[in-house]
Formats: sequence, C-alpha cells, structure tokens
Amino acid sequence: MKSPVRVGFIGFGTVAEGAVSILTGQQALLRRRAGFPIEIVKIADRDFTRARSAAIPSDILTGDVMEVLTHPDIDLVVELIGGIEPARSYLLEAISHKKHVVTANKALLALHADDIFQAAADQRVSVGFEGSVGGGIPIIRTLQEGLSADKVTAIHGIVNGTCNYILSEMTRHGKPFSDVLKEAQDLGYAESNPTLDVGGMDSAHKLTLLARLAFETPIALKEISVQGIEHITQADIAFADAFGRKIKLLAIAKETDGFIEVRVHPTMIPKQSLLAGVEGVYNAICVTGKNTGDTIFYGKGAGAQPTGSAVVSDIIDIGRRIQTGADSQVTPFPLKPDAPSLPVKQMENVESLYYLRLMVEDKPGVLSRISGVLGGQGISISSMIQQGRKAEGHVPLVMMTHKAKERHIQEAIATIGQMPDVSEPVALIRVEED
Amino acid sequence: MKSPVRVGFIGFGTVAEGAVSILTGQQALLRRRAGFPIEIVKIADRDFTRARSAAIPSDILTGDVMEVLTHPDIDLVVELIGGIEPARSYLLEAISHKKHVVTANKALLALHADDIFQAAADQRVSVGFEGSVGGGIPIIRTLQEGLSADKVTAIHGIVNGTCNYILSEMTRHGKPFSDVLKEAQDLGYAESNPTLDVGGMDSAHKLTLLARLAFETPIALKEISVQGIEHITQADIAFADAFGRKIKLLAIAKETDGFIEVRVHPTMIPKQSLLAGVEGVYNAICVTGKNTGDTIFYGKGAGAQPTGSAVVSDIIDIGRRIQTGADSQVTPFPLKPDAPSLPVKQMENVESLYYLRLMVEDKPGVLSRISGVLGGQGISISSMIQQGRKAEGHVPLVMMTHKAKERHIQEAIATIGQMPDVSEPVALIRVEED
Repeated sequence: MKSPVRVGFIGFGTVAEGAVSILTGQQALLRRRAGFPIEIVKIADRDFTRARSAAIPSDILTGDVMEVLTHPDIDLVVELIGGIEPARSYLLEAISHKKHVVTANKALLALHADDIFQAAADQRVSVGFEGSVGGGIPIIRTLQEGLSADKVTAIHGIVNGTCNYILSEMTRHGKPFSDVLKEAQDLGYAESNPTLDVGGMDSAHKLTLLARLAFETPIALKEISVQGIEHITQADIAFADAFGRKIKLLAIAKETDGFIEVRVHPTMIPKQSLLAGVEGVYNAICVTGKNTGDTIFYGKGAGAQPTGSAVVSDIIDIGRRIQTGADSQVTPFPLKPDAPSLPVKQMENVESLYYLRLMVEDKPGVLSRISGVLGGQGISISSMIQQGRKAEGHVPLVMMTHKAKERHIQEAIATIGQMPDVSEPVALIRVEED
Repeated sequence: MKSPVRVGFIGFGTVAEGAVSILTGQQALLRRRAGFPIEIVKIADRDFTRARSAAIPSDILTGDVMEVLTHPDIDLVVELIGGIEPARSYLLEAISHKKHVVTANKALLALHADDIFQAAADQRVSVGFEGSVGGGIPIIRTLQEGLSADKVTAIHGIVNGTCNYILSEMTRHGKPFSDVLKEAQDLGYAESNPTLDVGGMDSAHKLTLLARLAFETPIALKEISVQGIEHITQADIAFADAFGRKIKLLAIAKETDGFIEVRVHPTMIPKQSLLAGVEGVYNAICVTGKNTGDTIFYGKGAGAQPTGSAVVSDIIDIGRRIQTGADSQVTPFPLKPDAPSLPVKQMENVESLYYLRLMVEDKPGVLSRISGVLGGQGISISSMIQQGRKAEGHVPLVMMTHKAKERHIQEAIATIGQMPDVSEPVALIRVEED
C-alpha cells in the first residue's frame, strides 16, 4: 500500500462540496484508479453553519486558512474560494510551503497565471486547474496531453453555461433576453449579478487559459475583445434562423497570418454544426488541429459534481506524480520560455463575415445608399432580407457580408448609423464559416 | 537539454507514415511540449519501394524487425503492422527487452490485452494505445486520466468511420447499402474486404478497450453481442425518420443491475441528439458518468494524421515518464487485480426498446394476431405505422415497443416470422432512449 496523498481545502462552497463528496463517497474506486489513498486533512472555511451533504468529521474543519496553508501533513492545497484576493495570496503562500495546488479559479488564473506558474516552477510543485474551464470536460488535460502532438490552429468554445442556457431558451421559446435571464436566476443557472457571465468576461477568463495552452502563448485578459449577449434580440435570432444559423456566445482563439485572434462575442454558426446543437447549460469546445482536424469536447460546464470531479482528477494526477517522485521534475506546460510567443491581432484587423440588421425607412434608394457605404469600405453583401413592407415607419433590413475587416465594418456601420434613413444603431453579429 | 527518447517503428504503412511525418515535421514544437527530443532510430518494414511523403535517411530503414526489437539504443517500439501475428510476438519480444511499446492495434488488444499488459507490468514498461480507438480523439487518455475521478455508468460510441459514412450517405442520399459501400471502397473509406468494419467486429474490438477502461473489467471479445449494418434498408431509415430517429452503429457498454452489457448493433437514436449529428467518417464517444453526466468526445476516427498524432501523443506521454524515472512505477491502468470485475450480462437478458418492421398481408386481423404474440411475451407497443394500403400483396407494418427483454422479443419475432400473414423475416433494430 502506498502512502496517502494528503489534501487540504480552502473554501467549502458548491464545488468543494462536490469534490469532498466524491473523495469520501468513492474511496475504493479512487484508490484503485490512483494507486494510493487520498486523505482529506483539513478544510478551511469561514462558515460551517450551512448544511452540507458530505458528512465531515468536525476535527477536519477549521476557520483558520493558515492551518491548511502551513500544515506539515498536507501535500496538496485545493483553493475553491474564487475571486482574486485573498485567493491569490493563499495560493502563493501554499506554493511557498512547497505544497502542490489545485484550483478552479479562472478569474484568478486569467490575471495571475504567470506569477502562480512561475512560483510553482520555482518551488517545483504542480498546479492543477482542470476545473477552471469546461466543468467536467477534461479539456485542460486534453490540450496538455491528449493533443500534445498536434499543432492547434483554432479553438471555438461554448464555455459559459449561463449564456448558452439563455440563448437556447430565447431560441426555443421566443422569449426576450430579460425574461430568460430572470428565469435562469430563479433556477440558479445565473448569478444575482450576472454581468461576469452575460457580459462575456467569464468566457474571456477561460479563453486566456485555452489559448495559452493551445498556442503556447501567454494572453493578457485585456488583449481579448469581449462582447456579451445582452443585446441579442428575438429579431436577430429569427433572422439567424432564416440564414440557416444559430447564435451562440463563442470564445474564439485562432492563428491567422502569424497572429493570434482572441475574442468572445455572439456568433452565428451553421444550424447543422455540432456546436449549434449544444443546448442549455452544456459547454463544448472545438479544437482544430493541423493533424487531427476538428475534435469536439462536450459536457456539463459547471456544477458541484462535474467540476468537483475535475478537481479530484487533478488531485489524482498530481498524486501520481508525487508517488513516482516525478512531481519535482515536471515543468508546468503553460510556461515555455522558448515558445515562439505569437502577437495578438488587434481586433480592428480581424477578418470575419458579418450579419447586419438595420431599421430603415421603407422607401426607394435606401438600400442603394447603404450598400454604397459598405462598398466604399470594400465590403460586399452576400445575401439580404428586407422584410415587412409597412405603410409608414421603419422596416428591418438585414444583410450578410462576405469577409471583411473589423475596422472597415465598424467604420461603415458608424456612417450608416448616422444616415437619416436609419432609425436605430446597426446591430452587428459576427458569423463564423463552416 | 534532456537526453532524447529513442523510438523504433515496426511497420511503415499509413499510420506510421503519419506519425513519422509529425515527428520529423514538427520537431521544435514536440521538443517544447515534451521537454525532450524524440529520435527515430530505426523503421522496419518489408517494403520500402512504395513512395512515402516523409523523407527518411536510408540508414534508418531496415527490413529486419529484430533489429528494432533488440536495438540497444531504442527505448520505445511502435508497432503499426496490424493483425494478430506476428504483431503479438513482436510486441512481447520488445517488452521482454524492456522496451516500452505503443500500438494502434485494436484487434490484437481485443484478444491479447491481458497477456500484453501483464508482460509490460512484469517488465515495468508502459503500453500506449491511444491510436487504437477513435483515431485523433484522445479517448483512452480521457478514460485513464481526465475522467479518473468519475464512476462511468455507460458508454455509447460511434467508433467505426466506415459504418458511419455508409449510414450517413444512405440517410442523406437515399441510396442502398451496396451502392454506398462500393463508393466508400472507391474513396478509400472502406477496405476491399469490408467485413471487419460493416459486420461490427472492428467496433467490438474497440469496445473491449473502452469497457475495460471505463468499468475496470476485462471483457472477452466473444462476450460482446455483435451485429453489423449489412441488413439496414432504406425502408428502415425512412421509418426511423418518421419516428424522429436516425440509425447509427453504436458500440454500447453499460452497467445495469450489477452486470455489464456490451453490444454492437445498429441503433435508433433521437434525431436531435448530438450523436445523431455525427456524420461521415467521424467518430464520437459519449461517456456517462455518475458525477459528470454525459461527456462527448468527437473527431476523426481514422487516417494517417489523426491516428499518427495519437501515436505521437503516446510517445510523448511515455517519454515524460521515462525522463522523470516514473516509467517503472506506473501500473498500466487496465490491470487492476483488486477491481470488482463485473459479470457480462447475457444478451438474452438485455432490456431495450425495439423497432420492428414486418411485411404483412393487408387484411383485417393481422395486427391483432401480431400484437397478441407480442403481448404473450409481455411486450407492449408504444407506436405503430401501417403504410401504403395496396390492392394486393404485402405492406410494411412498423412498430416501436416499450422496454422489453431481448429473449422475449426474439421469441416473439421467431413466432411472428412463421405466421402465414407475414412474408419476410422481421427486421429488428434496437432503440436507445434519450
């Protein structure tokens, strides 16, 4: 029998509870899989009054985080309190005590991955972060190991379950954004302050990690162009359908002309594509590789059990390295000083297809003037729908463009938005080709 | 700089060529990812006259397999000749010389995995077999590591690209099986002798590996109930569509009542399910876990580059263990003497929903007699289509049943097939619930 790997938890919220219930409820299975037992030494939290499903002996619980961070019997610290501080300080403190760390904190890693990985490399300990992207989908390990022989050229990910749930429900039931958001909050799928999710920033956090692994390039959060789903209307969903497409919030990283594009925005994708079939709170990440082509990884993107399972898989993985003495020799994959770090492409230079929806006066010459502005920017229209001829007032004019540069389309819609024939700001949604 | 991991190949066919072209064409990337260089020491094959895309120095090529198996400089032998013998002897010989081995040979592992893993455990070397299932999809590593913390309850896999291509084309273009098979052969998607693929045995080979990993239970190939796609007709595809379903060849392993079901057969699945959206030569494996729920892994199931990429990912993985000295301490995951090996459920005890298509005389009383036979076996009908009323002759009668035992449905259709009202053997296709 190998000696146990001894674990301490910081934070005992939803995901920690999931991980702890897996560790306590599946002991025999985990010991067999791992080859060693996993022992929970301490769990630190501020509040132990909340009822929890996992039954934990009271001597394991502590209100003192430092007890976990400095405990001589703890090999590995699991940080699940979330947020930037004090999570960052706690992780660095644990690492300074030569403890391996596991975290699901994408917001923290999006901002401070370099510091944390460097500290871990200096102390020769490992950082596990499988739970930080895609919940139960083992996408981190897949990029580190499963696809280690491939050169990734693009990633397209549905990585925020809240947004995907809202867009799915808007599409299925024809309800407006605000109603579905409210429902999602009632169901616990959306936070009471949903900004991080629906504004796209949570997806951007995750994209920094995916892009870093896939392209061996550190990505600063501020380099990602981020747009949320708050402005998606039923009209856009219906027109997308007419064009054979669905709207999904995608996190996109791709290599084009020696640059990396990193962006999060609502995106029209072909209805028959597998990503379009990803409904509700599920996540899916499509990795395009030079050798393997498109590979898609789909599953539950959040929740106590899926994310808890990812956290435990990290504990097993690092535990195996501890057991074999390999732990002190493995350089964390994301830090490769000799990697040819690619520059991030400015959003204005990104090329895409575009969907444009305008509310225009229903009179002759309007289309000519609008297509003239687009043509002036070198943008050509691939298809057009002009709907609902009315006696008076404005009607929607919807266009799909051929490939164009973001700078040109933005200049064009700024000009169009000021035309007297046009009554509202132009709605723009990017369109990904097949 | 770490010392290189030195590799020898046995066989230089399609997949080997893919792996070698990745190793020679992406050296800098692989060295960075792995942390060490990978050196090809020798490639043994019987025929070097065939033109190959990868340019290999002639002193690396040899016609003598033993030169690879016993070469003192080779750490790891990649077997890609396929088939049972001499592949099995070569692998065991390599292992006996304390060489790690990598193979994509599912037929061999389906029959001799126990011997090979035991020999490797005895010699303290690793066996990599990521390329044996799902081509470029890292499903082996996912079951070994990514989902290591989960208890798998079911696997549903589209793991044969040839069958999926044929069924996709039959569905899309309304062509008969034989025509599409011919096309697939012309396109190189099907072998000139397609029996192993279309008969389901290749899927069964792969299922032994998936089930072994997911359920920690050795599965003998002969325990798998196997049915191919040769008998699927356009009529069945059209009726499936009418029931909101598509027909896919699925490899299924699931735990029910303390048993494991392992079976390969054409299966009707809901049209809107993600597996139903897997078209052409692509593969997809849905893993259902107690904690993570459904996770799906999708990608190219075959081909030089995808499978070559999987082979190289194994070389990197084992190379990392060699470099860290961990190689001699890692027990191959599939061999767990203390695992609670589950018995395989006899096919006659498996429960399923069923689709039945009968050609019956179009006269009163027939449906009553047929439903009487089903009812006598305790089988109830959930929906029914009786089509194409004709002046004379036989018309199709199609039924979907509620859940029933295989033994009862087989007895019922044997009885029904002998009724004077019924003109052809009953077509039976199993139906998986959502």
